[in-house]
Amino acid sequence: MNRLKYNAGTGNQKNWLIQETVFDERYLGKCEAIFAQGNGYLGVRNALEETYTGEVRDTFITGTFNKASSEEVTELPNIPDMTGINIKINGQELNLLKGKLERYCRTMNLKNGEVVREIIWETPSKIRLQAQFRRIVSLENEHLMATAVEFFLDQDADLVIETGIDGSVTNSGAQHFCNIERRVYDINEMQYVSQTTESQIWIAQHAVCRLNVKADVLPEMGRRTLKNKYHFRAKKDQKISFEKVSVYHSSRDMGYMGKQNEQIIEKMKQDGRDVLKTAFSKGYEGIKRESEKQWEKYWKASDIIIEGNADFDQLAIRFALYHLNIMVKHEDNRVGIGAKALTGEGYKGHSFWDTEMFILPYFIFTKPETARTLLEYRYKNLYGARKKAQKNGYEGAMYPWECAWVSDGEVTPEYAGTDVITGECTKCWTGLIEHHITADIAYAVEQYYLVTNDQDYMEQYGCEIILETARFWASRLQYVEEQDRYEILDVIGPDEYKEHVDNNAYTNYMAKHNMELALHMIQELEAKHVDLYGKLDQKINLLKLKKTLEERIEKLYIPKPDTDGIISQADGFKNLKELDLTKYKLAEQVGTIFDDFNIQQISQYKVIKQADIIMLFFVLGVLFDKEIQRKNFEYYEEKTLHDSSLSKCIHAIIANDLGMEEIAYEFYESCLNVDLGLYMKSSDAGIHSASIGGIWESTVMGFGGVRMKGEKLYLTPKLPQKWTKLTFPLCIKGNFLKISVDKTSVTVINHGNEEVSFLLQEEMVKVPAGMKMERKIRENEYEISRHYF
Amino acid sequence: MNRLKYNAGTGNQKNWLIQETVFDERYLGKCEAIFAQGNGYLGVRNALEETYTGEVRDTFITGTFNKASSEEVTELPNIPDMTGINIKINGQELNLLKGKLERYCRTMNLKNGEVVREIIWETPSKIRLQAQFRRIVSLENEHLMATAVEFFLDQDADLVIETGIDGSVTNSGAQHFCNIERRVYDINEMQYVSQTTESQIWIAQHAVCRLNVKADVLPEMGRRTLKNKYHFRAKKDQKISFEKVSVYHSSRDMGYMGKQNEQIIEKMKQDGRDVLKTAFSKGYEGIKRESEKQWEKYWKASDIIIEGNADFDQLAIRFALYHLNIMVKHEDNRVGIGAKALTGEGYKGHSFWDTEMFILPYFIFTKPETARTLLEYRYKNLYGARKKAQKNGYEGAMYPWECAWVSDGEVTPEYAGTDVITGECTKCWTGLIEHHITADIAYAVEQYYLVTNDQDYMEQYGCEIILETARFWASRLQYVEEQDRYEILDVIGPDEYKEHVDNNAYTNYMAKHNMELALHMIQELEAKHVDLYGKLDQKINLLKLKKTLEERIEKLYIPKPDTDGIISQADGFKNLKELDLTKYKLAEQVGTIFDDFNIQQISQYKVIKQADIIMLFFVLGVLFDKEIQRKNFEYYEEKTLHDSSLSKCIHAIIANDLGMEEIAYEFYESCLNVDLGLYMKSSDAGIHSASIGGIWESTVMGFGGVRMKGEKLYLTPKLPQKWTKLTFPLCIKGNFLKISVDKTSVTVINHGNEEVSFLLQEEMVKVPAGMKMERKIRENEYEISRHYF
Repeated sequence: MNRLKYNAGTGNQKNWLIQETVFDERYLGKCEAIFAQGNGYLGVRNALEETYTGEVRDTFITGTFNKASSEEVTELPNIPDMTGINIKINGQELNLLKGKLERYCRTMNLKNGEVVREIIWETPSKIRLQAQFRRIVSLENEHLMATAVEFFLDQDADLVIETGIDGSVTNSGAQHFCNIERRVYDINEMQYVSQTTESQIWIAQHAVCRLNVKADVLPEMGRRTLKNKYHFRAKKDQKISFEKVSVYHSSRDMGYMGKQNEQIIEKMKQDGRDVLKTAFSKGYEGIKRESEKQWEKYWKASDIIIEGNADFDQLAIRFALYHLNIMVKHEDNRVGIGAKALTGEGYKGHSFWDTEMFILPYFIFTKPETARTLLEYRYKNLYGARKKAQKNGYEGAMYPWECAWVSDGEVTPEYAGTDVITGECTKCWTGLIEHHITADIAYAVEQYYLVTNDQDYMEQYGCEIILETARFWASRLQYVEEQDRYEILDVIGPDEYKEHVDNNAYTNYMAKHNMELALHMIQELEAKHVDLYGKLDQKINLLKLKKTLEERIEKLYIPKPDTDGIISQADGFKNLKELDLTKYKLAEQVGTIFDDFNIQQISQYKVIKQADIIMLFFVLGVLFDKEIQRKNFEYYEEKTLHDSSLSKCIHAIIANDLGMEEIAYEFYESCLNVDLGLYMKSSDAGIHSASIGGIWESTVMGFGGVRMKGEKLYLTPKLPQKWTKLTFPLCIKGNFLKISVDKTSVTVINHGNEEVSFLLQEEMVKVPAGMKMERKIRENEYEISRHYF
Repeated sequence: MNRLKYNAGTGNQKNWLIQETVFDERYLGKCEAIFAQGNGYLGVRNALEETYTGEVRDTFITGTFNKASSEEVTELPNIPDMTGINIKINGQELNLLKGKLERYCRTMNLKNGEVVREIIWETPSKIRLQAQFRRIVSLENEHLMATAVEFFLDQDADLVIETGIDGSVTNSGAQHFCNIERRVYDINEMQYVSQTTESQIWIAQHAVCRLNVKADVLPEMGRRTLKNKYHFRAKKDQKISFEKVSVYHSSRDMGYMGKQNEQIIEKMKQDGRDVLKTAFSKGYEGIKRESEKQWEKYWKASDIIIEGNADFDQLAIRFALYHLNIMVKHEDNRVGIGAKALTGEGYKGHSFWDTEMFILPYFIFTKPETARTLLEYRYKNLYGARKKAQKNGYEGAMYPWECAWVSDGEVTPEYAGTDVITGECTKCWTGLIEHHITADIAYAVEQYYLVTNDQDYMEQYGCEIILETARFWASRLQYVEEQDRYEILDVIGPDEYKEHVDNNAYTNYMAKHNMELALHMIQELEAKHVDLYGKLDQKINLLKLKKTLEERIEKLYIPKPDTDGIISQADGFKNLKELDLTKYKLAEQVGTIFDDFNIQQISQYKVIKQADIIMLFFVLGVLFDKEIQRKNFEYYEEKTLHDSSLSKCIHAIIANDLGMEEIAYEFYESCLNVDLGLYMKSSDAGIHSASIGGIWESTVMGFGGVRMKGEKLYLTPKLPQKWTKLTFPLCIKGNFLKISVDKTSVTVINHGNEEVSFLLQEEMVKVPAGMKMERKIRENEYEISRHYF
């Protein structure tokens, strides 16, 4: 049974709506996550108004990290809930598991961010309820959420509506708040102030409701709850309309930066009440209209159009663009993007390499200011990165595998799930030995610079990041005397099913690239930017670094293709044991291999979690010819379980590069389905931000063929068979382009102020400011290998 | 619809079984609490195996108090859960709200403490499940809980059973545990160790399961969970039998007293695994048999038999005796009895005057060792009581209104629910000004001594309590010059609907009694116990205290009956405003007056929460003649909402004393129904320990007519019309008696070693050791007033 419907909507709603058409309490997590609403500041899972077992009713405010207890790592706390609404009809709570559910349809409208749920439900005592629930998190005012409920009954009944602010929510049982202060103003207006236990961040929440009929209102406080109870008599066929406006503030809000704590608390209360008052006067419709306008602006600038027999693809790219817009607070350089964004408790709101390698390209190529904000965050992370390097006996900046608040440093948990063999918790090695993230961040800085030409960023932040990361690598290399070379021993590469490997190819290549970047930069600075050189030299001994880099880059061991053309993922990969992966490849769920083996055992087999060598081709493809790439793709893909959501998008891109069109599209579809697909459990802990970034990457950088090679922009489009046309925006050096690609031509409109040049299928093309350019494109050179596999 | 069935069971099960015959997810709290199981050490709410919204899945270990956060008061933490079991049939979880429930019956067997649930349920895809769930908390080994599930399916199906240890539970959102350590031994045996956040108490939990068919077993760890997942194929009509044994230890266990923390943790793990191993080898049936034997012993010694047309009364007194047995750890003088015992989060596991005035009489009169343990707890509380006196500028011992761990001192929360008028939290004044508890405890010590003649207790503990409490009162009195008398100003009496009253009659009388007791004791000690006098004199200046008491007792203002015979509950009661209480008296729920008024307003009306003057008649009845009692009963009762569960039992006793037989029985029934009645919401936060003690009090001290007047035991039985005979055990000065009362005679069997004497309707009767005595009794002197009201 398909619980989701994608092709809902006609006319101008076509390919904007995702519908959940079946209520099934076993799969609540799916639409809680994929229908999550927010604005980068606030993230609210779309838990239903009424309560069900197994729901995960999460609200997050970006940056409000807290440690629930001293031995745990910091995480984004689940803020007291304001989404819950309890409706009782003649004493029977609305509960779709009871009585008779005649109609259920929940629709996420990607165009305006509204979720609408329509139900027709009969209570066990045969009262028929026809109801519509609407909810919006404002894109206009980040502090604001609004809900509207409208319903009719087919007979008179006693109604109770209870809603308020529920601080009894936890992060899977971990409670983050204390010092709760509650108050009701004028019976109706609710105020709930609480503080995180360790980071001592204050959260102020305000809510107020409106009901279109006269009711007795009673405020009630529980231990960690504050609610209003509306009691009234509803007439047969009378339209009952109930609205709730909810307002969130945190003492970490940008507006309170630099203020004293005591000041902030009073200000938060005042601000909360003010926002509430203004919003309440606008009502749900007014709040929605304002937010809608912001969404209109966004879509006007950002929409990607896929034409052809590709409705799902069109919807999916919009789904990705929707989440890409709400996963980041675009102007706040103190916060990163969580692996599950603000849509679930998974990965605790922490930022990984996911941001730089999978999400950032979207921002670099379309929203450079946001990309800069995110890379400023990484500059601020230098504090923790230097601390981590020092703690581990290295120099420079060793980026934390997981980052939270800017000053937190490394926040990777020490332990994960059960080791089925020993029965103990599995030790998490990523925080200790997954080192490639440091090179990934330097690579991202380079990419940002190449695309945007943002000198100011480089001067203020970027150069220092590249130098400090290179300094880390120089100190991280281990000299191996018998071969007179440097190696990188005992790491985890992108493929996390191999712990404690030596010379992971991805890591070594990226480390080398990082060091080369730094060396090149020092040379450039020496030659052309004496002031900046001097400034940086005060922090980092550049002469010494230059010498070290010169010597070590030269002698760093870089795994090369062997006689079969295979680049060993890490030392000894070819000697690992074989394992029949069919069972795990066919499993609906990822990670089922851990039901049979522990990580020590898995490390001994030729089994790969995710793109590793393939990832290397994505980032440093210029170094490898197509034939080598093809051979390695073939060799490694069959050993890859794609148990990470970071895997398929990259495989789609490389397959497309290699002309394996059908395979590329298969991986692409598979990537679109990571969150949006019919497997209903995949998004329980939140959407997969990186995979969502990967949707954009495989669409625009894959099929659209957009890629930087050095300082040059390349456009090598190659659309899937089902597509007739792809249109997407792109921003190069501050010039906004609209690019359309079909099977035979490329059209570029330059909305910018400068001429833009790029290589179209290796041929240099220039588009002057304000001009439109159309070019024919050649048949794909890899066409011949379309049916390669 | 009656959801509970009381007259279930025939033959030797008659009046032992309480059945819940309807599954209604709105009323889960009721049977979770009244069917709660335990042994004084452990308390486990009877949450169903599968999960429902609104359930409160609590497990408590006595004495493991912890503060969830620094601004909250300490409470009994909800221990990680081991009761939950999740059963999936072809992917559909057992959930009685879905599919079709053909039969549901959950039975609490008071005789052996077992709860059995039988269901016939059809999954939404028409697979019929016939299942029986059984659960027991061992009375033989306090660390032990066991569950057995047996079921049949009407067709082959894929089965998954998941169960383990779930540490994501909270106290209404407050998480008490950190430093979690988990492990699985041999795939099957689960170990979960965690520590309370503030009191740093370790809890070790172990569980193991047995399944009668071959299954794949997979251990799984979540953030705060550890479970085993059994996956197997069940055949049509095959009997599937699943057992789980659960073991609990805490570092506060008596066995670990005096040990170092590090030692304890290892010992707990070893002890846990040992208990688990032994218990597992016995299986559910073996564990049950052992526990059953302990229950047999208990009932042999403790059962009360009510004959006549009184099945419900018989069941209810057994219900009370069941809970009285499991609400206390009989030999541990570091812990008291919580207002909700170990059956719910209400009142946080704290002890109030409830223990001394409502529960202790049962133990004093039937289990003197337990009574002594409880009064040793109060001796240990002296530490906190002295601290509180000092803090408030008084001398001696001022008992905390709420007590938790022995050294905690006052633990009353500062704030309660919403003030409907101001919209703020209501300030809790009880911890500050409800002072009568100090006199209540002294009174209880006296009662204990009078009934048991336990000299040793008095010498070691009792005398000091009485002297220190008297010293508090002497310092607490306020001299009022114009009347040349002492008064007690600004208190709350037992009637908590009057805050900040002066000269609450109950308080003044009890304070005077307390001081008189001390004065009398000093005189006795001086005369007869010089050593003890000397010992106590070193702690307390007895000469000074004596003089103070002599002067102040004399001049303490004691409200006397006015010209109408009414004793003013507190100064100015008669001048308070009148209020029509009909609405509140008719409400199903208690406390509905707070929907309309706040406590400041309520204090201005003639409205009483609970027995106050009536309570005074219960404890110091000898001071008031029947006519005065009758007048006051009539005057105050009509103003009393009985919004406290402590009210009705006392009204039943006094009404019976006054010959208002029908009214007495009405109150009695009403008291039986506080927890056991058909109003399904009353016990959500736990059973009412005091009301349960009150059932015993109104049965034995009320209808049975057992009362101490000074040193003399009085027996003035007066059975309700429906009863033909009442038989109960009693222990006087260490001699166990069996007393039977019918409408015309009393029979006493003395199982003790000494002659026992008492006054039967004012006539002295002596029963030699080992003898049986039968006496006729007179018609009730108040017979005439049976239809008084």
